[in-house]
Amino acid sequence: MVIASAPGKVTLFGEHAVVYGEPAIVMAINKRAYVEVNLRNDSKIRVIAPDIVIKGVVLTFDQNIFSVESEVASARSELSYIVKAIELIAKNYGVFKGADIRVWSEMPVGAGLGTSAAITIATIKAYSEATGLDLDKKSIAVLGWQTEREVQGTASPMDTSIATYGGIIQVQPLNNDINIERLKVPMKLPIIIGYVSREYKTKDMVAKVRLLKEKYGNIINPIISAIGQVSRKARISLESGDLKEVGELMNINHGLLEALGVSTKQLNDMVYAARKAGAIGAKLTGAGGGGCIIALTLEKHESVSLAIKSVGAQTLESDISEKGVLIE
Amino acid sequence: MVIASAPGKVTLFGEHAVVYGEPAIVMAINKRAYVEVNLRNDSKIRVIAPDIVIKGVVLTFDQNIFSVESEVASARSELSYIVKAIELIAKNYGVFKGADIRVWSEMPVGAGLGTSAAITIATIKAYSEATGLDLDKKSIAVLGWQTEREVQGTASPMDTSIATYGGIIQVQPLNNDINIERLKVPMKLPIIIGYVSREYKTKDMVAKVRLLKEKYGNIINPIISAIGQVSRKARISLESGDLKEVGELMNINHGLLEALGVSTKQLNDMVYAARKAGAIGAKLTGAGGGGCIIALTLEKHESVSLAIKSVGAQTLESDISEKGVLIE
Repeated sequence: MVIASAPGKVTLFGEHAVVYGEPAIVMAINKRAYVEVNLRNDSKIRVIAPDIVIKGVVLTFDQNIFSVESEVASARSELSYIVKAIELIAKNYGVFKGADIRVWSEMPVGAGLGTSAAITIATIKAYSEATGLDLDKKSIAVLGWQTEREVQGTASPMDTSIATYGGIIQVQPLNNDINIERLKVPMKLPIIIGYVSREYKTKDMVAKVRLLKEKYGNIINPIISAIGQVSRKARISLESGDLKEVGELMNINHGLLEALGVSTKQLNDMVYAARKAGAIGAKLTGAGGGGCIIALTLEKHESVSLAIKSVGAQTLESDISEKGVLIE
Repeated sequence: MVIASAPGKVTLFGEHAVVYGEPAIVMAINKRAYVEVNLRNDSKIRVIAPDIVIKGVVLTFDQNIFSVESEVASARSELSYIVKAIELIAKNYGVFKGADIRVWSEMPVGAGLGTSAAITIATIKAYSEATGLDLDKKSIAVLGWQTEREVQGTASPMDTSIATYGGIIQVQPLNNDINIERLKVPMKLPIIIGYVSREYKTKDMVAKVRLLKEKYGNIINPIISAIGQVSRKARISLESGDLKEVGELMNINHGLLEALGVSTKQLNDMVYAARKAGAIGAKLTGAGGGGCIIALTLEKHESVSLAIKSVGAQTLESDISEKGVLIE
């Protein structure tokens, strides 16, 4: 039996713009997804995910036939990452063994906290370890990104990178590679995550921005560049420990995301409630269209958390997780 | 007795960016300010503004001494435009006669609808007419802008230009001159104005953007350019009658203003309420920090108006006013 875990993430800066080559800054949070692999004597893949959905889901993969004993669509979509990751390991490394796989998570599914990437990366780690493959982190990250691309059509490398490496990283797509730089942040970064259910999928929000960019290139391109500039400046602020600037830049980034049309009334309600309660900066995080916001708080954790709850959202408290993917 | 009137305005696109040389698009609304001038036989200036404030205000200007029989600060600030306009006419044209001046307005004072500019321009028109000066519109606009600059320290030429010319104009500052182009808009432009009391003054919001620009030039300069691009594209959309695009561009412009830090929770509440009720675009208008939003509505006037009221605001319905300053 092998258990691997990988952290979820929040995007501090640069979501959406990263799709067009700008840098983004992503932080691993200390909430994790876990994948347990027990090899079988046959060639069946059996996935049990008791925490991911309310109803038990049993998925079987045998003779290339993928069958799910559940009608819960969101669970099926999470589980397809597991199946695809194993399929790619078989394809890229010629290794395939049947296994019982159990998955659980400390994060809500579909909130934009990178649960599917964390599950993907933990699956690759646990399954490769159990089958005797010795994959380094770079290979795990590349395979994870490939998994997300094949499941979703397109994907940013952010979530799979951060689930692999932990900490705070700057991610920038470079041709078909991922340029990753680890930031040295000399302090804690206490954040409150507020979340509501998503109204739209990531794919839809990315498509919405693309349409807007095609229609209004002269306007949207400078907005995307400005987001890139926010990320570059934020990196300096983070590495020099200037949290007040980090907060101001979060607020600017939120407005630019609003200009790209990816915010919602509920996200704005959370952002403004957090700021009013004393957060030094707040923004939507991830693809938008519902989902999560992050609020940077130095002292007023309790009041910021209550303020976010008061507009009908749930909250998680977190900080930087220095641990990437690991064997438990 | 001479009565002149001038329209209020809403900024459709480009507020704040116009301070830094970008074009803005401003629309005269069919709500007006009125100024009545009755020449006196002495050299006293007596101003009565029954509608501007609840309490009657009597202001006297005699031997260069300006005295107000009211403690209402906002009324005094409106009235200082009248006094300054008359002072500048005396200075620039050598014309001075005592007068009783009565002022009233169909717009709320201090909401950002250009009431002070409308009063200034109507004052210049009525007073110059009464004293036999024959000022053309360009001279009135220049004198009005000078009046606002001297009262406020700095001022954009937008409000005084639109109060002079009416219609929809593109305004762009050019050295010390005002470049004004009239737009040919082939349709009606029905808007709902939502307004709440201002939390901050225009001056404070302009200063806030300037500080942000000084601190984060690499980020704020592209945002200001992007707002300029929104105005340029919106001009094309307006002149070609594409209201759907006008609405989309309003939404983008709102986000960019949010990024400049000039929106508030109440403004966002109004904007999102209007969009949800069927407005095809909505944005804050003017300096922000409270004040007004505009929502472009094709058919759902009633539901958009109700939705804006439901978040605690008041509303005005309007359309383009083709009439600039005129003698009633």
